[in-house]
Amino acid sequence: MTAAPVSLERLNQASLAEFVSVLGAIFEHAPWAAEAAAAQRPFATVADLHAAMLAAVEARPQAERIAFLRGHPDLAGKAARAGEMAPASVSEQAGLGLDRLSDAEYDRFQSLNAAYAGKFGFPFIVCVRRQTRDAILDSYAPRLANDAEAELSRAMAEIGHITRLRLVEAVEGPGAPKTAGRLSTHVLDTAHGAPAAGVRIELFERGASAAAKLLEAVTNADGRTDAPLISGRPLRAGRYELVFHVGDYFRAKGLALPEFPFMDVVSIRFGISEPEGHYHVPLVATPWSSATYRGS
Amino acid sequence: MTAAPVSLERLNQASLAEFVSVLGAIFEHAPWAAEAAAAQRPFATVADLHAAMLAAVEARPQAERIAFLRGHPDLAGKAARAGEMAPASVSEQAGLGLDRLSDAEYDRFQSLNAAYAGKFGFPFIVCVRRQTRDAILDSYAPRLANDAEAELSRAMAEIGHITRLRLVEAVEGPGAPKTAGRLSTHVLDTAHGAPAAGVRIELFERGASAAAKLLEAVTNADGRTDAPLISGRPLRAGRYELVFHVGDYFRAKGLALPEFPFMDVVSIRFGISEPEGHYHVPLVATPWSSATYRGS
Amino acid sequence: MTAAPVSLERLNQASLAEFVSVLGAIFEHAPWAAEAAAAQRPFATVADLHAAMLAAVEARPQAERIAFLRGHPDLAGKAARAGEMAPASVSEQAGLGLDRLSDAEYDRFQSLNAAYAGKFGFPFIVCVRRQTRDAILDSYAPRLANDAEAELSRAMAEIGHITRLRLVEAVEGPGAPKTAGRLSTHVLDTAHGAPAAGVRIELFERGASAAAKLLEAVTNADGRTDAPLISGRPLRAGRYELVFHVGDYFRAKGLALPEFPFMDVVSIRFGISEPEGHYHVPLVATPWSSATYRGS
Amino acid sequence: MTAAPVSLERLNQASLAEFVSVLGAIFEHAPWAAEAAAAQRPFATVADLHAAMLAAVEARPQAERIAFLRGHPDLAGKAARAGEMAPASVSEQAGLGLDRLSDAEYDRFQSLNAAYAGKFGFPFIVCVRRQTRDAILDSYAPRLANDAEAELSRAMAEIGHITRLRLVEAVEGPGAPKTAGRLSTHVLDTAHGAPAAGVRIELFERGASAAAKLLEAVTNADGRTDAPLISGRPLRAGRYELVFHVGDYFRAKGLALPEFPFMDVVSIRFGISEPEGHYHVPLVATPWSSATYRGS
Repeated sequence: MTAAPVSLERLNQASLAEFVSVLGAIFEHAPWAAEAAAAQRPFATVADLHAAMLAAVEARPQAERIAFLRGHPDLAGKAARAGEMAPASVSEQAGLGLDRLSDAEYDRFQSLNAAYAGKFGFPFIVCVRRQTRDAILDSYAPRLANDAEAELSRAMAEIGHITRLRLVEAVEGPGAPKTAGRLSTHVLDTAHGAPAAGVRIELFERGASAAAKLLEAVTNADGRTDAPLISGRPLRAGRYELVFHVGDYFRAKGLALPEFPFMDVVSIRFGISEPEGHYHVPLVATPWSSATYRGS
Repeated sequence: MTAAPVSLERLNQASLAEFVSVLGAIFEHAPWAAEAAAAQRPFATVADLHAAMLAAVEARPQAERIAFLRGHPDLAGKAARAGEMAPASVSEQAGLGLDRLSDAEYDRFQSLNAAYAGKFGFPFIVCVRRQTRDAILDSYAPRLANDAEAELSRAMAEIGHITRLRLVEAVEGPGAPKTAGRLSTHVLDTAHGAPAAGVRIELFERGASAAAKLLEAVTNADGRTDAPLISGRPLRAGRYELVFHVGDYFRAKGLALPEFPFMDVVSIRFGISEPEGHYHVPLVATPWSSATYRGS
Repeated sequence: MTAAPVSLERLNQASLAEFVSVLGAIFEHAPWAAEAAAAQRPFATVADLHAAMLAAVEARPQAERIAFLRGHPDLAGKAARAGEMAPASVSEQAGLGLDRLSDAEYDRFQSLNAAYAGKFGFPFIVCVRRQTRDAILDSYAPRLANDAEAELSRAMAEIGHITRLRLVEAVEGPGAPKTAGRLSTHVLDTAHGAPAAGVRIELFERGASAAAKLLEAVTNADGRTDAPLISGRPLRAGRYELVFHVGDYFRAKGLALPEFPFMDVVSIRFGISEPEGHYHVPLVATPWSSATYRGS
Repeated sequence: MTAAPVSLERLNQASLAEFVSVLGAIFEHAPWAAEAAAAQRPFATVADLHAAMLAAVEARPQAERIAFLRGHPDLAGKAARAGEMAPASVSEQAGLGLDRLSDAEYDRFQSLNAAYAGKFGFPFIVCVRRQTRDAILDSYAPRLANDAEAELSRAMAEIGHITRLRLVEAVEGPGAPKTAGRLSTHVLDTAHGAPAAGVRIELFERGASAAAKLLEAVTNADGRTDAPLISGRPLRAGRYELVFHVGDYFRAKGLALPEFPFMDVVSIRFGISEPEGHYHVPLVATPWSSATYRGS
């Protein structure tokens, strides 16, 4: 969604043509979802508008819902490589690097996609902005084991996530559904009874293969980072690691640490399962101890 | 030292020839250290015997002490590759894999050794059984920066460590000097208020490059491992990581964890600086928290 | 039980008269429980002997079991004041001070006892060595709410506890049933990464009214007390408090603490519900933090 | 100070008479401190105004400064009982109950005051709004041990604290000096990985004698109290206790706790030494563990 957002108020008063021109692409190749919602205006909240569009799809007979699902591109598929997807799908899949896979990775996705489509008759659909690449790959097996009804319902739930994110970016107004999570940290130095300032922090995604560094930050005077580590978008469900360089910090505070400090580099590995949740992951440390917990 | 240990009592009563035949190789190419000690018998403790031998070396003029140091092989040097070292040195250096370095590693050691010998006039001496390979490599730079007096004294301290270990293996008796450290762990489950049994644990050495797995263990009914993770020998000074598979444990206890559990795999990275110390590294955990500290 | 214990082996071979003279008083006014058990000799373990005596009571018709229960003195009752109880009951009740209650306390027990006997037809029976006085007083209300069958079964369970303790003191031999709990502590100083030695510790029972100090101890070089705080007997179920004078300790270690140290006196209040359990209550502290958990 | 505050801007432009009428009572019986400051107008900040008034006192010869100190009432003295103090002193001393002491307490203060005045020639001066009654009583002994110069300087420092608080209440404007501390808490439930809502909390001052309950609060959905426990005024230096009723909380969450829960009532005793500081005292707990630290 690169266009500037339109206000809900304006959409409530717009012509049908304008309404559909703004929202017709939210549901992939299904402008009729926007048309059906238009008839129910006005909407008090963005969440109501989303619910109405989703209900329009749910109201269709099963065969039509499956046809709608069939209109979606394969994940990491030929369309992604060839540049033939709807613009929203392009940027979503690119966010995970799904448009530039190695040949082996591409082949793996192709074979999983083929197995899935062969069993269910529609492509594997997932809201890629709420998952790490590993989480997506891990989810093929359990979803392939589902029965048709469960998987149709799961696919529609993913459509709900995908379109909610698109709608929130396209429309400004009250009552926007929650689509953003937050990851934050805080370092407390209990040797000195004060926030730990100046601690270097690294955040990694811990994939099946190597660990990819997502960002670095340094704690401020309150022991926090100036901004949350991640905010304003869904957290990707998956496995992460925070690394805190506390040895350097304690040495800078004037403590005499041994050659190989007991606590030099503290690693906190944690999982995220709620993309819209708040994960506060504090570190409470001395040169000889460390603790963490899910805070708030 | 592959021979069966001899009792201190017997050495106290042995002929000079027998005494030297047992202890002559403790100090590299310096049977005179044993001879000098023999004259001071009887020894009440193994520690006293060691102190007497060390004092015999320290009593020599500086030029002779340097000549003694020169009798030691290069670390990871040509002698190690060619199989020309004293038997004790062979097994000590082999313990770190210093006899089977890649060519690049071999070259790195050669160039560090050359720089060291060039500055001080004797080879770089370190008690390899008390250090990881990384710790040894890291120690060249600060030792090269020392002045001659400091480094002569450091070399003699390392000789003390080397010969203490050799002597403790060669002689049985009261008052053996402490040469063994201990690494232990304990897992407490504070969601249930009980020791965590059946937790899989991995211990890694975290080198400059990859992490080498040293061992795996599983906690018993008391949340401990049946034997200490390391005992009966010096701990190698360096960087380590304990990995605890607590997600599997909590799931086996019947807790419903999310797809990516917040605490699934807990990593504790820690440093060891006292090879003869006791490092107790407990884990206190719930599915939502973890803590560690240097215990006892 | 003040007599010296008799061995199980001897009891297995003793005459019926001797057997009953040793064990006849274990079950209050019921030497027949010992007689019935005598016929089943030999016993491999003390636990087997206890089970046989208990089974002899359980085997009686309900009316006789109730008559047996009626043979027990009132708790904190007239018999306790007047010195008319069986010797074992005397010392057991005296352990809680039940023989020297204030008039108000005495009246409270009398009225609770009367209510209980009025409903169930036998006295309120509890193993007083496994409970604090508060725990006993608290237990009247829920037990008065039970139906007759549940309370008969509960009374017999208490008889089991009472007689197990008496038997273990009267008979020496293999397979003694577990009657002793253990309370221990350990103080770790994570400002220094070492056990905290010399910390003054107080243990209180926290009753409904004032807190009674049970003991004081000082930690040794390993941060523990030389002996467990309580061992060799049941822990009394109830509420407790451990008080650790860590401010004095940290000051003695040379740390500059403010006038009112953040952590000066650490109080850990905890409950005990398993009189035969092991309660390990460690303290992990710095001048700015403290933590505890049920350890092992 | 019961009058409505006057703006700094207005004071900067006021006549000398108005200026002194507003600020003349800030320094006890010393309107000349305000007069001296008036000549230095305008002041950019309230802190600058305070500094100027304080400097006016510091600039006087020692004999005059001592005369100024002599103008202050005895702490908890006859004037307090008889209602003869300056209005600001009246409310300050009443805040600690110093106007309604028992006879024994009154006598104790009288004798300490007499000893102090006898040694130094001026009354014992302390900013009572920054201290608990116990802290004040405890401070006589060390202050009596000071020499005259140290104690004159300490008395002036207390005058600084007293007048800063008075000035901040009398004058509105930019750059007010910091006079308020903050005490806050936060309860995290690491059995569930979430803030603990609905936990009853009690705050006590722990005096030398009994513990006085200062307030009760209940945690909100974020595990915090809706307002800080104390804010908007100096924290009184002294000893405190926070009591958290976590057993009730965990039971309400559906956990099956034993009759005497291991962690039922968690007590955190802590000291406050910085009246203008922020003391964040979180509790991280499960039914089997608890931890706290000075947070931020």
